[in-house]
Amino acid sequence: MSKAWHLISRPQGLPTMDNFALRELPDAPLEPDQLRVRNRWLSVDPYMRGRMNDAKSYAASFQIDQPMTGGAIGEVVESRMEGFSPGDMILHMGGWRDGGVVGLDMMPNKLPADALAAGLTPQTFLHNMGLTGGTAWIGLLRVAAAKPGDTIFVSAAAGAVGSAVVQIAKAREMTVIGSAGGAKKCAWVKDLGADAVVDYKAAPVLSGLTQALADLGKPGIDVYFDNVGGEHLDAAFATANDFARFAICGMIDVYNDGKAQEMKYLIRTIPARIRIEGFIYTDQFFDCMEEFYADMGGLIASGAVTMRETVHEGIESVPDAFLGLFAGENMGKMLVRL
Amino acid sequence: MSKAWHLISRPQGLPTMDNFALRELPDAPLEPDQLRVRNRWLSVDPYMRGRMNDAKSYAASFQIDQPMTGGAIGEVVESRMEGFSPGDMILHMGGWRDGGVVGLDMMPNKLPADALAAGLTPQTFLHNMGLTGGTAWIGLLRVAAAKPGDTIFVSAAAGAVGSAVVQIAKAREMTVIGSAGGAKKCAWVKDLGADAVVDYKAAPVLSGLTQALADLGKPGIDVYFDNVGGEHLDAAFATANDFARFAICGMIDVYNDGKAQEMKYLIRTIPARIRIEGFIYTDQFFDCMEEFYADMGGLIASGAVTMRETVHEGIESVPDAFLGLFAGENMGKMLVRL
Repeated sequence: MSKAWHLISRPQGLPTMDNFALRELPDAPLEPDQLRVRNRWLSVDPYMRGRMNDAKSYAASFQIDQPMTGGAIGEVVESRMEGFSPGDMILHMGGWRDGGVVGLDMMPNKLPADALAAGLTPQTFLHNMGLTGGTAWIGLLRVAAAKPGDTIFVSAAAGAVGSAVVQIAKAREMTVIGSAGGAKKCAWVKDLGADAVVDYKAAPVLSGLTQALADLGKPGIDVYFDNVGGEHLDAAFATANDFARFAICGMIDVYNDGKAQEMKYLIRTIPARIRIEGFIYTDQFFDCMEEFYADMGGLIASGAVTMRETVHEGIESVPDAFLGLFAGENMGKMLVRL
Repeated sequence: MSKAWHLISRPQGLPTMDNFALRELPDAPLEPDQLRVRNRWLSVDPYMRGRMNDAKSYAASFQIDQPMTGGAIGEVVESRMEGFSPGDMILHMGGWRDGGVVGLDMMPNKLPADALAAGLTPQTFLHNMGLTGGTAWIGLLRVAAAKPGDTIFVSAAAGAVGSAVVQIAKAREMTVIGSAGGAKKCAWVKDLGADAVVDYKAAPVLSGLTQALADLGKPGIDVYFDNVGGEHLDAAFATANDFARFAICGMIDVYNDGKAQEMKYLIRTIPARIRIEGFIYTDQFFDCMEEFYADMGGLIASGAVTMRETVHEGIESVPDAFLGLFAGENMGKMLVRL
């Protein structure tokens, strides 16, 4: 028998424990192309908030009274799927639960045995070698087409995705300005290699960013990697160089309140010919998975990309871990260990 | 001796006559790679408002106490430029003046003799065969990559660019929803072939657009061609299908007041994976000029694309014609005949 967190009502604003219930899943016999899995690590990510809204506002909503999903690392305990055997460690989308049946819709992939043998921890595949690292890599290098010499601005730079963006960009000889809230997170972003840091709790984002650019002797930004939206995004519009590219990965500023975003500098889209593009990891990941694993694996092996985890324990703690994302509790990747 | 409208002060909000002065230009001898030209037709376009701001807000600002520039059709009266002879009719960027010296920086191009012989008027090259038609064609087909079967939303559909977008899209078997202000303009947009029209003066844009989509049995828009910004742009975010493309051509809503734009649905950029791109005609026109002339020439010759002009007379009337753009005085292309 396994247990899964179900969405039992749609949150208005910030979610509360009342929106979730931990319920048992029936132990059905496996059908062809299914696996039975025991999960070891669960990922919680800001984008999940969007999926708690109804279908009109988000393409793939969680359904009421159904188990939620998300990135997970599990061990196969029974297999009717070709290529998978009991004992295999897999990355899949059947998270928010301690185990159960995983079909092809959960996109199971075996963790590469050589990477595990070389010392990578399984949870790395939920982080720099998985959803968050893949999101950073795809957004920076493919969506925004960032190249050596570019000046990159990344918001939520102390978060899981943002901290990967900072490190990948530095490894590619870009100039990086990261924003984070508070001295402790800003110090860590600097430690990651960022050339400058904007503390959005200390001053308006635009003044911090303008100062950072002046300090670095840069006229503006070539790439904005957005995890936040709102004031950060507007500051990026204000400081964009001609032909700047914005990869829009998240807008945690407005996930909960859904308020209108005040864009004073949006009009610069035209004279600066800015290209803004929203993206979702799963649209592109499977096209470039091998290239990503090889490239990111090399960056991790060389020490160019490091990881930091904030870990909660046990299936009961998943909603707490998730809500912690919106309170800024995490440095690096927020995970739940089962 | 020729006369040119100079920008003598930067407008705050809507420009007034006090911002402009008609001054004489010195009659300098021609240097190599220069032409002397007598202008016949001048173009006034909304984008010129942006160039009246200072350099920080617009890449290529008009300079104070200098002649302004813009699209013009002129006759060569003297040439030191290879390939040009007296009597040639040319399209160039030395507008806002009745004539004078045109160098390579003004991008002179001879009007195709065969097109003129076939009956196209010279001013067509300021309109459907020039800046506005080229902007429509590039924005719709190249920037937004619109294709047959797509549902297109275009704002300011009774304007010069918008009316060309409507007609090109219909000729390409797209479904077209145009917005315009007032019954008279809306009726004309319908006459141009639009499948539905949104009268933004009659109701909020989003409710009009939602109704139009319902009437047409379409789930949302695949392409938004933006001439307006503000409420129109937000309605486009609200109704965008997955992987929608927005070509951002203009934001006449905010050219004058520079107010913040309230974007309630901007967050849909992520789940719908919207790509938004600002563009300027001159960046792309010279790369695709031959293809554009052939394609648009064919559409005009077949009657698929027609044109309508609102014409002012004489060099003295240029600022009035320009200001008329912001009062919605024009149907189709606003021109000045000299």
